[in-house]
Amino acid sequence: MDNKLMLMIPGPTPVPEQVLLALAKHPIGHRSGEFSQIMAEVTQNLKWLHQTQNDVLVLTASGTGAMEAGIINFLSPGDRVLVGCNGKFGDRWADLSAAFGLEVEKITADWGKPLDTEQFREKLSADTEKKIKAVIITHSETSTGVLNDVETVNRYVKDHGEALIIVDAVTSLGAVNLPVDAWGLDVVASGSQKGYMIPPGLGFVCVSPKAWEAYKTAKLPRFYLDLGSYRKTAAKNTNPFTPPVNLVVALQAALRMMQAEGLEAIFARHQRLMRATRDAVKALSLPLFAPDDAASPAITAVIPSSVEAEQVRAVMKKHFDIVLAGGQDHLKGKIFRIGHLGFVSERDILAAIGALEASLGELGYESMTPGAGLAAAARVFAQS
Amino acid sequence: MDNKLMLMIPGPTPVPEQVLLALAKHPIGHRSGEFSQIMAEVTQNLKWLHQTQNDVLVLTASGTGAMEAGIINFLSPGDRVLVGCNGKFGDRWADLSAAFGLEVEKITADWGKPLDTEQFREKLSADTEKKIKAVIITHSETSTGVLNDVETVNRYVKDHGEALIIVDAVTSLGAVNLPVDAWGLDVVASGSQKGYMIPPGLGFVCVSPKAWEAYKTAKLPRFYLDLGSYRKTAAKNTNPFTPPVNLVVALQAALRMMQAEGLEAIFARHQRLMRATRDAVKALSLPLFAPDDAASPAITAVIPSSVEAEQVRAVMKKHFDIVLAGGQDHLKGKIFRIGHLGFVSERDILAAIGALEASLGELGYESMTPGAGLAAAARVFAQS
Repeated sequence: MDNKLMLMIPGPTPVPEQVLLALAKHPIGHRSGEFSQIMAEVTQNLKWLHQTQNDVLVLTASGTGAMEAGIINFLSPGDRVLVGCNGKFGDRWADLSAAFGLEVEKITADWGKPLDTEQFREKLSADTEKKIKAVIITHSETSTGVLNDVETVNRYVKDHGEALIIVDAVTSLGAVNLPVDAWGLDVVASGSQKGYMIPPGLGFVCVSPKAWEAYKTAKLPRFYLDLGSYRKTAAKNTNPFTPPVNLVVALQAALRMMQAEGLEAIFARHQRLMRATRDAVKALSLPLFAPDDAASPAITAVIPSSVEAEQVRAVMKKHFDIVLAGGQDHLKGKIFRIGHLGFVSERDILAAIGALEASLGELGYESMTPGAGLAAAARVFAQS
Repeated sequence: MDNKLMLMIPGPTPVPEQVLLALAKHPIGHRSGEFSQIMAEVTQNLKWLHQTQNDVLVLTASGTGAMEAGIINFLSPGDRVLVGCNGKFGDRWADLSAAFGLEVEKITADWGKPLDTEQFREKLSADTEKKIKAVIITHSETSTGVLNDVETVNRYVKDHGEALIIVDAVTSLGAVNLPVDAWGLDVVASGSQKGYMIPPGLGFVCVSPKAWEAYKTAKLPRFYLDLGSYRKTAAKNTNPFTPPVNLVVALQAALRMMQAEGLEAIFARHQRLMRATRDAVKALSLPLFAPDDAASPAITAVIPSSVEAEQVRAVMKKHFDIVLAGGQDHLKGKIFRIGHLGFVSERDILAAIGALEASLGELGYESMTPGAGLAAAARVFAQS
């Protein structure tokens, strides 16, 4: 049977029907009054989602493009940056920073473990000469399902006083509380195919007044990703370069849905989905890759021991049309990841856990009591 | 009446129903075998469209992003580039090059006039030290409706021997013949919302072996737009960063339509649409902005004298739901532009000319014989 595919990867995430229908509308001109009205509404709602009065700029780019914009607009060649590295994306921001001639100092943790905030405190408090210009940190590390403690790291950045904090919120925004203004976050980058519930193609960068100050003297070359152009045109509800009109119309529909649900409800739902998934996986005696106190509400990584991760993914896909993510880089073949980000309901988790139990059974996995996973998930949903 | 809008701007261009429906399909995972199959087909068809065996890489970006990739991947700070400037986009590539620290030498012509190929010949033949590393030229200058003579300029670039030719083919690809291999073009950039008949959001860069040689030593910093990453992953029919899956599926549908029509037929259709539009405009005694021998098959700019350009646009929009483009920069309010690029039929031109006559009449324009525009367009269609 075709078209019954269920995506449980960390992006693209499932897209609601009304968003798909909005996407399929005939494009309108991006220099029209009609489109400016849409941009105005979308920008307002993006600020709501980011809990900020700062600029939130819309780029035609993937999340990596948004992060690149978030880095290169505020720094100059040779600037020192502290980069938190405990997964594929942290490593990517270190590579990106190095590619642009920044002096990268990594703070590392094993993949699957959260970054140690104390190491940030030490580095930042030792930097009396204020050479560290930015701290770059991934909130939800998609490759491992770890949620890094941005709130604490940000406190140390604030104590430092000079450095900007640049946050990869690609799989955290719209899944977990990230109050930009309350915390005073300088740069927050995200992508459309995650909590936003729309297909990939849009990147977002939220920029604080302090970051705009740094922008004035930042010397890394930029043009397509020059956020100054985006700010200038955003003031007139337009764009420096042709935006992906259809995706923006889809975004409008998705943001309206998010507003109707409410931020607190969205965060609570992701917490429930995460807890149900994790409790179910534990009940099936499968080891979780990230610890409970640093678990991402976007994605749960499982590192099975007596069954092959890739076999689990294969059976889930073949038999039940559920797409799970595999491991990346050195985790390839070692873990599987269950995405529960965006347009995901409790029923979806029950379906996924049911299919996981059935798949494990098919693979001869013996360390479980059939039904235990489903029961554990159901318990979480009953409590909340 | 809602939803009867007819876009006759140079992008976004009208999107066929089957492409919109492809766009609205639930996204699939971009790391799946299914998506790789789509990428393989799309890449093959992109090569067909470019008439090349060179790499054609797909980026999540606007046309400007594609052009930036086409420039920064092959050059180093301080490199001298010749940039053809006879409109907004030529100027943009000069600004972009300067932003990246290239030494820009402009070859200019008045907006509305084609670039003088002789000036390229002189500069290139005088450069015996081979300091010119690239010639950057806009094929169809969207802001003025001028088609620059890339073929001749390219011959001089080939005589030079060292310089690369980097072509902005954003509104020419899929509208006018641009045989990449036959001409030996090094870098050709384009965008999805033009001849491709899909919404904005994808950029394309076609890269020759000679350009890849230059890539090896090119030192401008890059990461998100590093074409090496795209080439590496394209070899496995995948992408370095999450692609806009839905737009790629739409692209697949659009390229199939283009193949069914055939390249020659597509070019001939655009020629007919251009000639009919120009003949009609002339028959209405409205001055054309670009000369006949350098007219773009993508867009026709009109510089009316006894009627206000913006009033024509306003009536066309309000009364007939036809969106024409206005002038950009210093041409704002002075010209209007009729797009006839992509999914545009002869009937669309008749409708537009009919509406133009009616609008001119409504505005009290007296220098025309009613029906003369339509008759002129019909004559072109009858001949072909």
